[in-house]
Amino acid sequence: MCELLAMSANVPTDIVFSFTGLAERGGVTGPHIDGWGITFYEGKGSRTFKDAKPSSESHIAQLIKSYPIKSETVVSHIRQANRGGVSLENTHPFTRELWGRYWTYAHNGQLSNYEEKFVTRRFKAVGDTDSEQAFCWIMDKVVHRFGDVAPQSMSDVFAYIATLADEIRELGVFNMILSDGNDLMFYCSNNLSYITRKAPFGKAKLIDTDVVIDFKKETTPNDVVTVIATRPLTDNEDWYILKPGEWKVFRKGILMFGSESL
Amino acid sequence: MCELLAMSANVPTDIVFSFTGLAERGGVTGPHIDGWGITFYEGKGSRTFKDAKPSSESHIAQLIKSYPIKSETVVSHIRQANRGGVSLENTHPFTRELWGRYWTYAHNGQLSNYEEKFVTRRFKAVGDTDSEQAFCWIMDKVVHRFGDVAPQSMSDVFAYIATLADEIRELGVFNMILSDGNDLMFYCSNNLSYITRKAPFGKAKLIDTDVVIDFKKETTPNDVVTVIATRPLTDNEDWYILKPGEWKVFRKGILMFGSESL
Repeated sequence: MCELLAMSANVPTDIVFSFTGLAERGGVTGPHIDGWGITFYEGKGSRTFKDAKPSSESHIAQLIKSYPIKSETVVSHIRQANRGGVSLENTHPFTRELWGRYWTYAHNGQLSNYEEKFVTRRFKAVGDTDSEQAFCWIMDKVVHRFGDVAPQSMSDVFAYIATLADEIRELGVFNMILSDGNDLMFYCSNNLSYITRKAPFGKAKLIDTDVVIDFKKETTPNDVVTVIATRPLTDNEDWYILKPGEWKVFRKGILMFGSESL
Repeated sequence: MCELLAMSANVPTDIVFSFTGLAERGGVTGPHIDGWGITFYEGKGSRTFKDAKPSSESHIAQLIKSYPIKSETVVSHIRQANRGGVSLENTHPFTRELWGRYWTYAHNGQLSNYEEKFVTRRFKAVGDTDSEQAFCWIMDKVVHRFGDVAPQSMSDVFAYIATLADEIRELGVFNMILSDGNDLMFYCSNNLSYITRKAPFGKAKLIDTDVVIDFKKETTPNDVVTVIATRPLTDNEDWYILKPGEWKVFRKGILMFGSESL
């Protein structure tokens, strides 16, 4: 299994605090030592930092922790390999371009008997994980359904992706984070939680390492920041724990639609 | 205009020496201050470091210079913007997946009257540079010609891409580097040079900053490393200067085919 972390914010925000907690789970407080990755969107562009080394030992993870990159949308993952060897091509997040946008995806869980289902035409996996094959299958299905141009309403696209995630969940555990840079979708199979922080901001304390942050000092009163994680990262705040099959789409930190609102 | 740098090697090799010279041209010895990027292939996987800041000032460029990432294939670019604003989505190299491989591309030059030509269906530009549109057009044409599965012979694919590059060169200046992770192609419009280093290795001295390296200490006798750059990076070695329309494909540091051998 692996750990997921993502963020959606209405102003470019650094994720150093949350990433510091997550990175500890990559070899110190957690067993996820088979690589890690993080994608930052900045405008329509994105950049991904990846390493097949444990996040707790990685030089590049040190950079991320010490050099705040401000972003409105972040997708991150630390890996404990089950399907697929430990290598850069098997390290999440995975990215593909569709409709002139970069789509970024990370998966926590394990699937079985997926080989026949995940035969794809246009999007093909580079590595050999079940996760990347599921991503390529979703993207193939989305193109088949909606064509080569983005539809007006993205809510239709994410609602359709949720039905695909329901199908995938029948093959095992499928906690997923997916973003096109504007919207951030997350789908829960068994372990996923989120918190939305807004004014009045308070202090938060990481569970995995001895770090406390006072968000009041780091934010302005208009900031809205939603953080998604496999398990809550702080122990003095109320995280929302998703139910199996539940999904949400956030844009600029705010809930746009999801399984309950449709 | 911009500067290109690439490497093809038969053993994972760090490019710190060459990148140190290139990065100086991003704001110190050259005017290319509008961002930079570098892609390292490691096996089938790849990772790209990018920054819209000048390479001579970038924290991430510092990391690349101080933390050697060993790779057999590298593509790098520093940018002086002409078409398209200074932003992450306009920063080279650009990557797309085709045939289960990551294709990475960087361009030096400027094109005109390309809007009608570069209409694409499957691969779409995320940013607004002529460069990325040319890349998406090449990828679209390759799929149209060869289909959804990689052909047996990649020499046919690169020979076809060279004819596309010939077409693009009619619209302006088009120096290009393109790799699928195995092969590294470069196409010259007006400025491109390369050097192949192998035993007996000697010393090399950078033109752009006061750094000398003794490759004998850094290599084994079997190493073959080819470095491609817009302009020679060292002043005590013989670089091959490509002619307009000339192109080459290297694999593991060795010339496989090109405009003269076909």
